[in-house]
Amino acid sequence: MVEESKVVLLGSGFSMFGMRAKIALEEKGIKYEYIEQDLTNKSPLLQEMNPIHKKIPVLIHNGRPICESLIIVEYIDMVWNNNSSFLPSDAYQRALARFWANFVDQEVYHVSRRVWTSMGNEQEVAKKGFIESLKQLEEVLGDKAYFGGDTFGFVDISLIPFYCWFYTYEMFGKFKVEAECPKLIAWAKRCMPRESVSKTLADGKEVYESVLDYKKLMLD
Amino acid sequence: MVEESKVVLLGSGFSMFGMRAKIALEEKGIKYEYIEQDLTNKSPLLQEMNPIHKKIPVLIHNGRPICESLIIVEYIDMVWNNNSSFLPSDAYQRALARFWANFVDQEVYHVSRRVWTSMGNEQEVAKKGFIESLKQLEEVLGDKAYFGGDTFGFVDISLIPFYCWFYTYEMFGKFKVEAECPKLIAWAKRCMPRESVSKTLADGKEVYESVLDYKKLMLD
Repeated sequence: MVEESKVVLLGSGFSMFGMRAKIALEEKGIKYEYIEQDLTNKSPLLQEMNPIHKKIPVLIHNGRPICESLIIVEYIDMVWNNNSSFLPSDAYQRALARFWANFVDQEVYHVSRRVWTSMGNEQEVAKKGFIESLKQLEEVLGDKAYFGGDTFGFVDISLIPFYCWFYTYEMFGKFKVEAECPKLIAWAKRCMPRESVSKTLADGKEVYESVLDYKKLMLD
Repeated sequence: MVEESKVVLLGSGFSMFGMRAKIALEEKGIKYEYIEQDLTNKSPLLQEMNPIHKKIPVLIHNGRPICESLIIVEYIDMVWNNNSSFLPSDAYQRALARFWANFVDQEVYHVSRRVWTSMGNEQEVAKKGFIESLKQLEEVLGDKAYFGGDTFGFVDISLIPFYCWFYTYEMFGKFKVEAECPKLIAWAKRCMPRESVSKTLADGKEVYESVLDYKKLMLD
């Protein structure tokens, strides 16, 4: 008899990276325990499970930790391979999916963060960069339903958590993503009815409120 | 009759990232054409093949570009899967290999660069960070021959190109990697006799000379 595997996810607040892992687990229908982490006071568990970066998310599968959101999503895809795959089977399409998921981490994340953490000219530059990066993604999406084609996959999982942060970027940057990238918003609205996504994504206004609280704390 | 596939690699100078792709191609015994790129005057080919980042390495396989060194190494591993694999077949070991290869990019690369680009206190901090990151890798290596165990694999490919830069870091930082991390140096010396590595890695003194020339140019 095979013992049922034990899956624990360490996540925190409105982290997009934690959300990726949640969506992947939900997509595969995996039962897991979620343990919220306080990143201002890191738990012994988090420090033990991710001693190098001490960051969330960490997936703990039968006691063994897997760190970094995209590595976690690939791990989940490989271990629970009963239904459809997040990554395409074709090597070239797989390389493209990895490239664009990395693009979300390297470009979208950094500029999006600066939209609400910076001011004045730096904020303007960040806003431009953010819109530019979304436009590049919109071009890659083209007329497809999802980034990989007809099925929700790796790039979708990597990007969709940012959608619940759009309201925050819009409020700080005084712009509307939809006016700039209507096809990307249509894609996000196509993703939202999926249970994995709707269960995971936070409410945009709640994210904004928590960012306001955080900024107030930082200024105190 | 299957047409033989055409493989082109765009690389530049002593880039560790370009070297990774070369080592992977050599390990798999793939015939390829290497085209050196001048990064101070980017070619139309490079701009066409990597329009997003305009960086090397780019692998062009039958006219289609694959960008980013670790993605290229994974692509080569998946397409030319006739002999042994760079990545372990076990999902957990695979996640660990990806984690440590990312660690080389995120930690080792950035601090190693600052050892020769910065001065004074910033350089001291970089040197400490660099040695610390190598010690973490040495701990992961443990008493194994290679990072993945008995065979040369993904993490080895990601790290070994830095070995030909060690002389540069040592000259600028006034320290000896071997005094700090003897096991890591023993690992590097174990990798060197491989044809894929010895054909690819530059001479440490040549790297240092080119860095001196580059710094002189920057100061002019």
